[in-house]
Amino acid sequence: MNGAHVLIRTLVANGVDVCFSNPGTSEMQFVAALDDVPEMRAVLALFEGVATGAADGYGRMAGRPAATLLHLGPGLGNGIANLHNARRARTPVVNVVGDHATYHRPFDAPLTSDIEALARNVSGWIRDTTRPGDVARDAVEAVRAAVGPPGCVATMILPADVTWEEAGEPLGPAAPAGARGVDDAALETVVKALRGGEPAALLLGGRATRGRALVAAARVARAAGAKLLGEVFPARLERGAGLPPVERLGYFAEFATAQLEGLRHLVLVDAPPPVSFFAYPGRPSGLVPPGCEVHALVPPDGDAALALEHVADALGAPPGEYVRQPAGRPARPTGGLTAQSLADAVGAVLPEGAIVVDEAQTGGLFVPGATAGAPPHDWLTLTGGAIGQGLPVATGAAIACPDRKVLCLEADGSAMYTLQALWTQAREGLDVTTVLLDNRSYAILEIELARVGAAGGGGPRARSLLELDDPELDFVALARGMGVGATRPADAQELTVALERALAEPGPHLVDVRLPARL
Amino acid sequence: MNGAHVLIRTLVANGVDVCFSNPGTSEMQFVAALDDVPEMRAVLALFEGVATGAADGYGRMAGRPAATLLHLGPGLGNGIANLHNARRARTPVVNVVGDHATYHRPFDAPLTSDIEALARNVSGWIRDTTRPGDVARDAVEAVRAAVGPPGCVATMILPADVTWEEAGEPLGPAAPAGARGVDDAALETVVKALRGGEPAALLLGGRATRGRALVAAARVARAAGAKLLGEVFPARLERGAGLPPVERLGYFAEFATAQLEGLRHLVLVDAPPPVSFFAYPGRPSGLVPPGCEVHALVPPDGDAALALEHVADALGAPPGEYVRQPAGRPARPTGGLTAQSLADAVGAVLPEGAIVVDEAQTGGLFVPGATAGAPPHDWLTLTGGAIGQGLPVATGAAIACPDRKVLCLEADGSAMYTLQALWTQAREGLDVTTVLLDNRSYAILEIELARVGAAGGGGPRARSLLELDDPELDFVALARGMGVGATRPADAQELTVALERALAEPGPHLVDVRLPARL
Repeated sequence: MNGAHVLIRTLVANGVDVCFSNPGTSEMQFVAALDDVPEMRAVLALFEGVATGAADGYGRMAGRPAATLLHLGPGLGNGIANLHNARRARTPVVNVVGDHATYHRPFDAPLTSDIEALARNVSGWIRDTTRPGDVARDAVEAVRAAVGPPGCVATMILPADVTWEEAGEPLGPAAPAGARGVDDAALETVVKALRGGEPAALLLGGRATRGRALVAAARVARAAGAKLLGEVFPARLERGAGLPPVERLGYFAEFATAQLEGLRHLVLVDAPPPVSFFAYPGRPSGLVPPGCEVHALVPPDGDAALALEHVADALGAPPGEYVRQPAGRPARPTGGLTAQSLADAVGAVLPEGAIVVDEAQTGGLFVPGATAGAPPHDWLTLTGGAIGQGLPVATGAAIACPDRKVLCLEADGSAMYTLQALWTQAREGLDVTTVLLDNRSYAILEIELARVGAAGGGGPRARSLLELDDPELDFVALARGMGVGATRPADAQELTVALERALAEPGPHLVDVRLPARL
Repeated sequence: MNGAHVLIRTLVANGVDVCFSNPGTSEMQFVAALDDVPEMRAVLALFEGVATGAADGYGRMAGRPAATLLHLGPGLGNGIANLHNARRARTPVVNVVGDHATYHRPFDAPLTSDIEALARNVSGWIRDTTRPGDVARDAVEAVRAAVGPPGCVATMILPADVTWEEAGEPLGPAAPAGARGVDDAALETVVKALRGGEPAALLLGGRATRGRALVAAARVARAAGAKLLGEVFPARLERGAGLPPVERLGYFAEFATAQLEGLRHLVLVDAPPPVSFFAYPGRPSGLVPPGCEVHALVPPDGDAALALEHVADALGAPPGEYVRQPAGRPARPTGGLTAQSLADAVGAVLPEGAIVVDEAQTGGLFVPGATAGAPPHDWLTLTGGAIGQGLPVATGAAIACPDRKVLCLEADGSAMYTLQALWTQAREGLDVTTVLLDNRSYAILEIELARVGAAGGGGPRARSLLELDDPELDFVALARGMGVGATRPADAQELTVALERALAEPGPHLVDVRLPARL
């Protein structure tokens, strides 16, 4: 069996049966082998940033990795930004990068570059598989590393000759690494801190924003009288009616500072200490208030759910007793299209079990509030801050969860990074509704321009670099050009109806929401 | 003066007055400073791959660098593929990458990554400018390094605090490095090899495919009875009626092998030894035939024109005596749209002084032949093999040469990588006509799938990964969605008229040419 066959069969045997691909010549053996292994679903993306973002979305929802198939260094380069987001989300991804044949590398052919140096930036595990006999073993290790915990991007560099040489037989799955046991000392410290009655908060991140961990955290919070905070950009937050409401830290450091003010204990649960997203002149980078002790409950490879349950029990928190988000939806909005009426429209119609992919930026400011009491749903965000994440993540999430509706809240400037994802959605017939927040500007940067205190900031030449209105982008035409039906509602009522229809009808849709240019 | 002002003023004083930008928060000081330095033209791109490709196109045509302005590691990642092409073209580029404030780096904020590791892949020079007082000096050195020879991507990493702190005064230009003098030993070897009367060829690359160097090479070729070959993908080839015709090596190794067969001497002029673009089972990587001696006339930082003139004189080649391409155009084509009628249409109307950006892939096979005798023009190609280069390079070339027409031959699959360039063309009102070669497939990969000899290659699942027809892309809608007028001619006559009109009218146009799905 050649290396390509061994790789694909080993991946499938290890639970990796979706591959987001944009192959080139060096990956043709992999492509050719697909006909012999129908268990592997290959999804074509028109750009590698779509493939890697889709793998991120898939991994976040499926809880197991998808593979990618990228073409040498430049293909990996195109996928770096969304692998960066996946790294920050600790999403399991098996990142397969084709390379020149091993013996071709010294010839420095035009596409040659240092793939490993690029990959190191985003990968928790890297292997350059230069011998055909190692393909099966390396593939097993890649999946195991990707799954974690913690999850990571595991990059396998695959020279072309390794794919066409005889490579033995595929391997079945290795035992997963499994989470590390609970650290009694950390547990005791946290219990003691929370028992003291001083102002405290839990900061949930990683895999602590859902499932058992989330419920246990809510029990702890109630028993200790502590706040339940979430990181600014969670990978996947479960929320909605009946679930514990988590207060996400604000993106702007001033807001986060206010949320953390007065705390004496901050318990990190699978989350890093809160920091300012960017630096600003004269403002602090770290956001932990003076006098506040920080306690990490679990290491990155720890079992957050188990640790939280121990803490809850130690605090005597009764099972099932925690604050629950009351059900409630905003009224169907009327009037003009504004950030608020958009939020209300989403809140009015969001279906149960929806997967919301949020790259809405400023125009989406009010949507979390308007959807808080909607039926339970998942919320996926821009974990690494590298824009162009939303449409691809929505694509991958839809493939991971074909029975659920995906709602992608996508800002216009961010959409233009990886708009090609719409074509993959059409090709695969995915149930994704994209709400295009069309304010014709990089509005977040207009705010940031003022915040960095730039001398003379905001002159016409500076502002023109933040505006997308000359010419205006026609997202209805752009979506249709990629085979996705699109509408442009004229007011909030039309928007609500358009959303309902798009969510009810199978296949992808785009709703272009023309918002005022300024918030 | 703050660091941002010092940087921009120093760049302008050193001849860098165009900046292709997609800024974020960490670059806001740079943006704010633009209003104070009107000599710097900032061009907004909707994606970093457009910005870096435009800088490549600008540098190839202007002969001096443009700057970029990219947002941390992910922004650089998005720009890597076209910087890879620029590296292979040895285009001068001053690649400015904003970073977090120096003191913010240890906090590992979400957008933090190893910018230097990414940059090393594509840069001939890198500097992490961590002190405001070094900005001016580093900017001068960056320009000097970028200009070369050889030209390179010079990357300047610019922390946000360095841009807002007091940074002294800007600096004027340093003396350029200048080319190394002629190497008498190399010269003598080449003269001796060419005098012997054995079969010989010159292989022109880099800056030897134009101007004085090209003419001197043609004199040498005529005097020595040697072939005049060009590298597969020249950065900028001058060609057309009255100019020396250069026979480019074929992309497929079989063709290049045939072109090189029987040679006893191959003189490299600013070009690397010929290698196969990819490896194929059982075929050689290096393409120099057995028994052929390879002579490098100049080192990478040498003066190819001067060296060639010395060789020509030593061979007694009379000035002005060399083979010239006869003038001639194909007849205006009639009938259906095919690769041949497309080529004839371009050949029939290509204006004098046009800049042709060629990312046409298989559909463009016949265009070089059909334009060989057109009035003199420049031909810019996919130097590094990283697709998504054409539309951005055309954008930058148009900014470098506002008095010339740019014709971009763009394959559909490659177009979808960096289609956002159309918006920048519209915004800047650039004279770019894009001929979209729309065959609804990655046709080159369909050929490569067969060539790699994949077992069972070409099954329906493999082939479906190489096809772009489900759904079909509507490039007229896509272009209009970004503010670029577009037409879809029905036959070769309409195509010829559409091309003439698009080239005559100011501003960008797109002509969608529906070609047969197979060559």
